[in-house]
Parts: sequence; structure tokens; C-alpha cells
Amino acid sequence: MESPLQHCARKVVLDTSLFVNPDVRFSFGVTPTEALGNFLSLARNASGLEFYMPPSTFRELLNFVNEQNISGELLVYLRLQPPKRHEIAVPGYLLYELIEEIRERVNKGLRVAETGVRSTEKRRIDEIIQDMRKKYREALREGIIDSSEDVDLLLLARELNALLVTADQGLIKWAEKLGIAWLIPERFRDFVEAAIRRAVPTED
Amino acid sequence: MESPLQHCARKVVLDTSLFVNPDVRFSFGVTPTEALGNFLSLARNASGLEFYMPPSTFRELLNFVNEQNISGELLVYLRLQPPKRHEIAVPGYLLYELIEEIRERVNKGLRVAETGVRSTEKRRIDEIIQDMRKKYREALREGIIDSSEDVDLLLLARELNALLVTADQGLIKWAEKLGIAWLIPERFRDFVEAAIRRAVPTED
Repeated sequence: MESPLQHCARKVVLDTSLFVNPDVRFSFGVTPTEALGNFLSLARNASGLEFYMPPSTFRELLNFVNEQNISGELLVYLRLQPPKRHEIAVPGYLLYELIEEIRERVNKGLRVAETGVRSTEKRRIDEIIQDMRKKYREALREGIIDSSEDVDLLLLARELNALLVTADQGLIKWAEKLGIAWLIPERFRDFVEAAIRRAVPTED
Repeated sequence: MESPLQHCARKVVLDTSLFVNPDVRFSFGVTPTEALGNFLSLARNASGLEFYMPPSTFRELLNFVNEQNISGELLVYLRLQPPKRHEIAVPGYLLYELIEEIRERVNKGLRVAETGVRSTEKRRIDEIIQDMRKKYREALREGIIDSSEDVDLLLLARELNALLVTADQGLIKWAEKLGIAWLIPERFRDFVEAAIRRAVPTED
């Protein structure tokens, strides 16, 4: 007979920042490869947690880690699972928020471009363009979901009712809108270690 | 006893282009006000059709038509109904398509800005900025849903399973994605007149 108090494994969706972002990676390792290895050592013991990553996110990770260096065992502990893109629905009002935010950012982008053109009397063109690229990127890309990898992470976390581990401000904002629990990567190691201490070893 | 072949009224959602867009308005009237009046004359007889407009779209229309000139009767034949923004869901994969399209357009917008800055050696700044605004707008706004009014029209048509009458290429593209029937305003008059001919007068 099963105990009525038995817990199900908690699902956790990981983005690449845990392994790639230099500001947060250091709790796991100096290089992305080392971070992955150390994550694996932890994951082996975390019987109360299940880790997931969308394949699109994993492909991004492979820009930083040589596939040869990834243990086959990792694939057991880090499940590569795409979200059911055609089944998961999002509430229509989120479309409003996205469209409104993009509209505002598009207007900001135009002002950045105009400032660029107007400043050519005072500065060198190369310099202006470099500066404009940075400001344009800030106006249109930062703090907003802006790639299909971002959408994969959100929909997978929503589908699995999982905890999303990410440092991306755009993802965090959208996780809040969609009712997805999130955790910053800086707290991830602590979280896993506490989960390991909590888990009661299963007996056959 | 009701006939088993009785038809329900067909629902039609209108955007402003029918009344405002000079290319298409002329089948209804020279001014937006006249177009609205002529629409009303038709709608009175079209017992087989029900016409809807989201209030946000109607507010846009009021930029072109003096509210004083709108017959109270119009509000009976053109129902102002907002979509159930918090109940209608959209399939998650549409979020991918939107994000991918925006991403591409954002990149295009940056190239427009860069070209603007680079051309300052050859052209006057005022001229460049005017030209750049146009191109930037084309890159980031045209042929894409870019306002909450657009989303209102789509979600209302989806909710009511209605025919969407619009000349907006962005709306037409999204209507296709969402399985919403659409009609270009140029064919609207024909469509209503044919529906009137088809409708059998109801008898008491």
C-alpha cells in the first residue's frame, strides 16, 4: 500500500544560464563543461527532483560545450523534452500585453535610430553605430521574450507545472504572468542540496 | 414547430477600414459618416446577419466620425462587444510565430537605422530621418498585428466564430492562423446584399 503522504518528484526546467552565464555559473564550475559535470553529480543524488530542458535550449548550450564532453548519463538526469507546442494554450490577454510592450519598444527603437542620425555632426559614424546597436538592442530585446527558445522554456514549464530556473528577466516576467514558479540560478545549488536532504531514501 | 433547416444569423466582425480606408470606403460613401449611414441602411434589411465591433475599434472610428452624427439606431445594428480577453485562449505555437516574426523585423529595423546613419555623408539629416521613419515603420509595423485593437478584432471573431471584415494584411494573416473566416471590405457590400436576397422573411 502506498503511503498517503508520498510526494511526487518535483519537476524543474533549466535554461542555459545555469551553465553559461558567467555571473551565475561559478557555483557550479569555471567552464560550462565543468558546470554541467557538477550539476550531474548533484542531480544523481536528487531523487526528489526531475530535471528538464527543451531541445532548443540544449542546442544553445552546445554552442558552449563540446558534445563529446557530455556524459551519456547526463541525458538520463536532464531530460530533453520539447513542449507540446500545439496543445498548450496561452490566455488571450497575454497577447495584448506582448503586443503592447512590443509596440512601445518599437517606438523607442525609432527614437534610438533618430538620435543616431542626428549625432553624426558630432561623432564618428563607426562609434555612433556601435553605440546605437547597443541601445537598440536594449530597447527592443532586453527584458522581453524574444526567441522561440524563450517560448519553449515557458511552455514546457507551464505544461509540466515545473519550477523554471532562469536568470533572464524577460522569462521571469512572463513566468509571473503565466503562473510559473521560478528560481534564480544563484539559488539553484542550495535548492537542490536542500531537496536532497529532505528526500527520504526509497526502499524496495 | 421549427423547421430543422432554420439558419442562425451569421455573425460578422467589422474593423474600421470599411468606413475609414479611402480605397475601400467608396462602395459605402464619400465620407466616413456617410459610409456609416449607408451601412446602417443595409444592416436594417440584413436579418440573416449580425454585425459586431469591439469598443476599442469603435473608439478608433470616432477619430473619423463625429459621435453626434451617429444614429442611435446604429448601436442596435452594430453591436459594440469586447472579446472575453481573459477566457479566450490562443494556441501556444502562435506565440512562436509572433516572436519569430518580431525578431526578424527587429533585425531589419536595426539595418534601417544603420543605413540612416551611414547616409549622413550624402544627404540632409531631415530628409534621412523622414525616409528612415517610413522604412522603419514598414519593417516593424506593416503586415503584423501591432495593437491591442488588432488583438480585440481577432479574439472577438474567434470567440463568436464570426466572419472578419478587414483590409489589414496583418489581421488577415493572423485570421488564417487562427481559423477565422475573413472578407476584404471591397466585397462586403456584395456579400450583405446577397445575404439579404437569401434571407427568407420571417412571419409571425
